[in-house]
Amino acid sequence: MKKTTLPIGMHDKLFKRARAMYTIERDISDLLMNKGFNRIETPTLEHFQVFGDEVSANNYNLFDKKGELLSLRPDITSQIGRVIASTQVQTPIKFSYSGKVFNYNEEMRGLSNEHTQAGIEIIGFPVQDALQEAIETAKAALDVSGVKNYQFEFSHASILKIIFEELNLSEKDAQDLAVLIRDKSITGLNEFTKVHSSEFDELIKNLPFLFGQASLVLEKARSLTDNEDVLTALASLEDLTKSLENVLTHITIDLAQLSSMPYYTGIMFKVFGDKVPDAFVSGGRYDKLFERFGADQLTAVGWAIDIDSIYRAIHDDIVFEGGA
Amino acid sequence: MKKTTLPIGMHDKLFKRARAMYTIERDISDLLMNKGFNRIETPTLEHFQVFGDEVSANNYNLFDKKGELLSLRPDITSQIGRVIASTQVQTPIKFSYSGKVFNYNEEMRGLSNEHTQAGIEIIGFPVQDALQEAIETAKAALDVSGVKNYQFEFSHASILKIIFEELNLSEKDAQDLAVLIRDKSITGLNEFTKVHSSEFDELIKNLPFLFGQASLVLEKARSLTDNEDVLTALASLEDLTKSLENVLTHITIDLAQLSSMPYYTGIMFKVFGDKVPDAFVSGGRYDKLFERFGADQLTAVGWAIDIDSIYRAIHDDIVFEGGA
Repeated sequence: MKKTTLPIGMHDKLFKRARAMYTIERDISDLLMNKGFNRIETPTLEHFQVFGDEVSANNYNLFDKKGELLSLRPDITSQIGRVIASTQVQTPIKFSYSGKVFNYNEEMRGLSNEHTQAGIEIIGFPVQDALQEAIETAKAALDVSGVKNYQFEFSHASILKIIFEELNLSEKDAQDLAVLIRDKSITGLNEFTKVHSSEFDELIKNLPFLFGQASLVLEKARSLTDNEDVLTALASLEDLTKSLENVLTHITIDLAQLSSMPYYTGIMFKVFGDKVPDAFVSGGRYDKLFERFGADQLTAVGWAIDIDSIYRAIHDDIVFEGGA
Repeated sequence: MKKTTLPIGMHDKLFKRARAMYTIERDISDLLMNKGFNRIETPTLEHFQVFGDEVSANNYNLFDKKGELLSLRPDITSQIGRVIASTQVQTPIKFSYSGKVFNYNEEMRGLSNEHTQAGIEIIGFPVQDALQEAIETAKAALDVSGVKNYQFEFSHASILKIIFEELNLSEKDAQDLAVLIRDKSITGLNEFTKVHSSEFDELIKNLPFLFGQASLVLEKARSLTDNEDVLTALASLEDLTKSLENVLTHITIDLAQLSSMPYYTGIMFKVFGDKVPDAFVSGGRYDKLFERFGADQLTAVGWAIDIDSIYRAIHDDIVFEGGA
C-alpha cells in the first residue's frame, strides 16, 4: 500500500478553497495583463545562487544529476532579476507573473510551505512614477481579489541599513538586534543601546513606537536623529505618502519594518488585513538586484501578493452558486 | 556575481509565449469549472511513493530534513488517487485541475522538464458515460485552446497487458519488447516471436500495422487472435468508437499504443496534432489506482492536456493586439 500522508507544509485544496484560490489568481493575473504588464513565467527550479550567495536551509534544495545544487524558488523577483541581467530584454519594461513559491519551514504544524503568489516588477522607469504605479496597481489587485479591509504600511530600507552599518556589529549581535526590532522589544532595545552605544541610541530605543499615522511617525523620527542619510530617507517617505493621499485612505508607516527580502534598497511597503497575521502584499524598491547578476543598476519597484493570505482573509465571505 | 544560467530542462517564458500559455491554461480551467468539474489543487511535492513503488530517476527527488524522500510531482492523477483514497471526499465526483508537472530528462538539450498540464478525473460514474463525457470534454478543451488540427487515437491497456502476461518475460525481455512495439519494428517483432513463440505470434508481428481507421483495425485484429480477453477488449473499443461517431470526425485506433502511465486498466486515448510529436492529450480508464492507496476499486476516467505542446502547435497563429 502506498503512502497517503503529505509532506510537512504541503496541502490539498479542494472545492470552495481550490476554486477561490484559482479565481483570485486568475482575476489578478488578468487585471495586471490588462493594465499593460507583460506576463512572464520563470521556472520552478533554479541554481541556488539565484536566490542568495549561500545555500539556505529555508529553501527546498536538491542536487541534479551533474551534482549542481538547485532550489525550488522561494521568490520570483530574483528570477526576474536574472532574466533582465542575462537576456536581451529591453528596458524600461513592466512584468507580471503568478505561480508557486516554496519556503521550507518546520516550526509549526499546519504551516504552508508552498504559496501562490502574483506580482509585478516595474523596471527602468523614473522611480517616483514607478512607486505610484506599483501602489495603485497593488490596490487594484487587492480590490479585484475581493478583500475588504486592508492597510498599506510604508518603510524605508535605508534607515535600518544605516543604523546597522554604523553599529558595525558581529553577525550574531546583528541577528539579535533584528529579532529585538521585529519583536518590538522595548526593554531589549534599551539594553542593547547600553552595550552598543551610538548616535542612533534614541532612534533605536524608540523603534517600537515609530509606527502609525504617517505624518506623526515622520515628525517623531525627525526629532530623534540628525543623521543626514536617515533624514533623506524620511523625506522620501514623506514625499511618497503625501503623493498617495488621494489613492489610499489610511497610510501608515512602520520604521521597524525589516526587509522581507535582502534586495530592497529604498521604499518598502506591506499591506495587512485585520484577520490574518501575514502580509497580503510585500513590495518595494530594489535597484541593486541586477548588479548582483553582473548587470547595470536600474530603477526597479515591485510587489508580490500572497493568494493564500488573501484566501484566509475572505473565505468566510465566499459563496459559489452553481456554475457561476 | 551570481549564476545566470538555467538548470537543464528549465526555461523562461516571456511575452507572447508567457501570455499564450497563461491564456490557454485559464480558458481550459474556466471551461472545465463551468462544465461542473470541481477544481482541485494538489501540492508540488509529495512522498515519492505516491508516484510509484520505487524511486524513479525520471523524477526530481529530494530529501526533507527528516530524511524522507520527496518527488516533484510528475503527474497529478496519482495525487488525486491519493486524495480519493485518504480523505472523506464522497464519490461519484468530477475533478479538474491545472498546474506544473516535472520529469527529469537529460537526453536532449532544449527539452522541457517542467510542463503545464490541465486535466480532469471522473470518478465513480458508470464507465461508458464517463468515457463519453471525458472525450467530449477533451474535445471542448482542445477547441477552446485554439488548436485547429487534432486527431483522437484509441487503444486498450488490456491487450498488450494480456500479451505480456502470457509471454511471462524477464524484465529485460519485456523492456526490449516494449521498445520494439513503440518503434513499430517489423523485423524486430518478427525475430522476437521466433525466440518467444506464443498464441499471440501473429498479433505481435502485426502490431506495427494495427493502426488507422477504427473499423478496419478492429476487423484486422479480430482475424489475428481467438483469445477471449483480447476479443472482449476489441469489442469495448468498437462500442466506444461507434458511440463517438457523432462527436469526433476522425477516429483512429493504434493497438501498439503503450500506456503512458502504469495505472491504466482499460480504454486509453491520445490526441495528436500534425505539427508536434508529443501528444496534446493523454487519457484513459484507471480503476485500480485507488487500490494502490488501500481504497476500494472505483470506475475512473481522466485525461491531461499538455499546454506546452498546444502552444508549440499554435504559436505561429497567435496574434495579440494591444491589451486585447
